[in-house]
Amino acid sequence: MRTFKLILEYDGSDFSGWQVQLNAQRTVQGEIEAVLLKIFKKHTVLVGSGRTDRGVHAKGQVAHFRADTDMPCGEIQRALNCNLPEDVVVHEVREASADFHAQMDAKWKRYSYTILNRPYRSALERKRAYFFPGELDLLLMKKEAAVLVGRKDFKAFANVDPSRTCDAIRTIRRLDIAKKGAWIVIRIEANGFLYKMVRNIAGTLLQVGAGRFPSGSVRKILQSRDRCKAGVAAPAQGLCLEKVFY
Amino acid sequence: MRTFKLILEYDGSDFSGWQVQLNAQRTVQGEIEAVLLKIFKKHTVLVGSGRTDRGVHAKGQVAHFRADTDMPCGEIQRALNCNLPEDVVVHEVREASADFHAQMDAKWKRYSYTILNRPYRSALERKRAYFFPGELDLLLMKKEAAVLVGRKDFKAFANVDPSRTCDAIRTIRRLDIAKKGAWIVIRIEANGFLYKMVRNIAGTLLQVGAGRFPSGSVRKILQSRDRCKAGVAAPAQGLCLEKVFY
Repeated sequence: MRTFKLILEYDGSDFSGWQVQLNAQRTVQGEIEAVLLKIFKKHTVLVGSGRTDRGVHAKGQVAHFRADTDMPCGEIQRALNCNLPEDVVVHEVREASADFHAQMDAKWKRYSYTILNRPYRSALERKRAYFFPGELDLLLMKKEAAVLVGRKDFKAFANVDPSRTCDAIRTIRRLDIAKKGAWIVIRIEANGFLYKMVRNIAGTLLQVGAGRFPSGSVRKILQSRDRCKAGVAAPAQGLCLEKVFY
Repeated sequence: MRTFKLILEYDGSDFSGWQVQLNAQRTVQGEIEAVLLKIFKKHTVLVGSGRTDRGVHAKGQVAHFRADTDMPCGEIQRALNCNLPEDVVVHEVREASADFHAQMDAKWKRYSYTILNRPYRSALERKRAYFFPGELDLLLMKKEAAVLVGRKDFKAFANVDPSRTCDAIRTIRRLDIAKKGAWIVIRIEANGFLYKMVRNIAGTLLQVGAGRFPSGSVRKILQSRDRCKAGVAAPAQGLCLEKVFY
């Protein structure tokens, strides 16, 4: 039995998220497992570093599977890419140590959230960014965002996920907001993310930038540990899982 | 009667090109004219700087129309963008001189052709770039491309278009090939482009880069004035009309 680590890119637009669901919707995990079945003639479970929701993209999702095969990594990659649909692709297949676990062993993850901030939308990037035409105070957004860096209780930024029960303490080691022309990218690296955490943070920072939350709000929201205090989650299409660190 | 100049962005993936066709296919011109009819309650002809083919994108297509209206430009832009489908958007509406003509007055146009050059395809950029996994000699491509700059007869790089009869002499004032990671972008500025000229040049340069056409080929192809000598046209999805200069 060998363990394989995959690096994956996908366009989330036409997927009902990462995880296989009971109601047979189209999922990234499901599409890849269907091809693994074809290659190895045996049902093979694919474990991702974490789930991504409907409409969320990935440039560097990591997953693993175990298989009893002699096939070289390059051949597995080619077989996967030839058989996968065009909106998912394998960047790398590498043999990992026998006990490697894509979810358990993940140390840090980096997400990006992209906002198009100008008076008119984009045709070419419509599925890759959230269009926000209003004025944004970027300096205030950056100042407020700084409060979130460090080891904190992020309960106020987590939607309730009935399938997960755990504390809400996570460490954000990097949160930066960069602007290039009309494009604003929020990048967040943390040792774990709660359900909808990045989208809730992005949504809250947008409220701050738009002047709907005054200076000092993010600290108060964080301290409240109350999801109702934070802004509404920013839409899925702006979100992308960039990289998983092990 | 006032004349309006539009700057347009569109995702060509789901369009049968720019120009309205007899067989009622979905075209960019057709979609915009349908909205102009709704706004002005009158059929209004939209004239583009030139046609783009099925699957070709635009970030800066220019078009004009004439209308008897008091509506301010900003309001026309908003009315267009609210009613247009999500894969086409108006960046700017500006009043132009009464005799402005988007096609006749165009002095220069800039196209880009994007190639993804690595062993595996892309999921997120699949509709925006041509995937070419083979090795490419970029230096040779650049050297050969230089031959095309200047006032030349480009007949060898033009497909026959029964609707256009004109000479094949055009001036390319800029042709550069830039590489960033796995992405290669060919940018060409000329005072006019023959039918499929950019895709034929890109296809020929790819043959050069792949070692299928030796050094000196591009000069010979150009001098032959024979379309059969050049490489096959590169696919539409890599092509984008970037800017029109007046």
